[in-house]
Amino acid sequence: MHVPETAAMELHDVNLILTVSILSAWQNIYFARKVSMIRNKHNIRHGSTTGHTEFETVYYANQNLQQYYSTFLVLLWGAGLFTSQVWAASIGLLYLFARQRYVKGYLGPATCRPPGFFFAKRTMMTLSGLVAIGLLNHCLKRFLGVEFDDYVANIAQAAPAVLLFV
Amino acid sequence: MHVPETAAMELHDVNLILTVSILSAWQNIYFARKVSMIRNKHNIRHGSTTGHTEFETVYYANQNLQQYYSTFLVLLWGAGLFTSQVWAASIGLLYLFARQRYVKGYLGPATCRPPGFFFAKRTMMTLSGLVAIGLLNHCLKRFLGVEFDDYVANIAQAAPAVLLFV
Amino acid sequence: MHVPETAAMELHDVNLILTVSILSAWQNIYFARKVSMIRNKHNIRHGSTTGHTEFETVYYANQNLQQYYSTFLVLLWGAGLFTSQVWAASIGLLYLFARQRYVKGYLGPATCRPPGFFFAKRTMMTLSGLVAIGLLNHCLKRFLGVEFDDYVANIAQAAPAVLLFV
Repeated sequence: MHVPETAAMELHDVNLILTVSILSAWQNIYFARKVSMIRNKHNIRHGSTTGHTEFETVYYANQNLQQYYSTFLVLLWGAGLFTSQVWAASIGLLYLFARQRYVKGYLGPATCRPPGFFFAKRTMMTLSGLVAIGLLNHCLKRFLGVEFDDYVANIAQAAPAVLLFV
Repeated sequence: MHVPETAAMELHDVNLILTVSILSAWQNIYFARKVSMIRNKHNIRHGSTTGHTEFETVYYANQNLQQYYSTFLVLLWGAGLFTSQVWAASIGLLYLFARQRYVKGYLGPATCRPPGFFFAKRTMMTLSGLVAIGLLNHCLKRFLGVEFDDYVANIAQAAPAVLLFV
Repeated sequence: MHVPETAAMELHDVNLILTVSILSAWQNIYFARKVSMIRNKHNIRHGSTTGHTEFETVYYANQNLQQYYSTFLVLLWGAGLFTSQVWAASIGLLYLFARQRYVKGYLGPATCRPPGFFFAKRTMMTLSGLVAIGLLNHCLKRFLGVEFDDYVANIAQAAPAVLLFV
């Protein structure tokens, strides 16, 4: 699962994170269509970002997610390459569910919005923590010659669970 | 051309899609300069998104393309790694031409806009279809042990042509 | 440092540019929090992009940087894979400093803004130049069989310094 520093990268080592990336790209297209559909429903002209509350909230929710999309991809691949591909892909998948819930929440009443937002934030932070562990391990190995690989393998098993649910 | 699952990835396996990515990055810079030039031409202050019809349409066209940029990159790399790099790069190149036409269309009268938009949408959908074929093949191979590689090689040759022109 | 075309890519060959990418992702999160903090400070409702000059300038600065983020990532990885990882990562790091200075500049008086902007533009252009050298070398090697690798290794050592400081 863990890509050794001196071994060649294989498609096998990145197939899960690549799959999650592709799913997220399709989800982006789905969200963009949703926004476009609601735009047409309320006859709002192209380029305009205001006109009807339903459109404004969905447009804003989508913008908000797109703003973090590149950041999410970098964290996903960073976590996948520096620690464990399986964990990175799993948390990435949870993030996609969080995004779905976030947009669905914005289509409903205002009280439905917080869960999706906090879930998305939590999964993003977990991914960020996993990247930090992987980066620290990589630097320790490179500059101090310390081999924490076994520990990291264990931490990478436990940490996401801790970060997600505590 | 096709990256075998168990073989190491080489620069040779991604050089075409990397080149298309770089070209798209340069095109982004070109579009941003175009927007900036038209902004200065009409003396619109930085940060403002309104003020003159020409500026508003070009600004909107660029925003619209940038919104899909990360999605395009993920689909390009997904198609390139899961199916054929040559097809992915070719369709990616067509998408870049479509983007150029889209922005040029927005600089002219409103009747010139549809062709670029539909061409861009069509190429994006083709890339998306190619990714779907590659992902399906990868999953079948992994979970069922079925080897459709030869079929996929053939489908990947034919499908883009079918998706693009039908 | 330079990835040979026929050799397998290893994590070792991309660890520096991956690290810079991760740092840039964390910086994105930091900027987004800064914008959110200033939004709350002035009690501006979510989705609104106007209301107070301080918020508007920081919001605009962040938008402006995010617009170039994917482009930056592609150029970083293009330069890292086609020329030298060390140079690409170094210039990428300079770009991150430039971004920091850019946003800090927007938090101060209007006269503080130009340095960050020009520094960011300069580093982006340097990265772009490095990519161009790498791409040219790659094409020459592939289509003409000319091996400029030694020259490129030398140019890649000198060019960034020239592009940055001249």
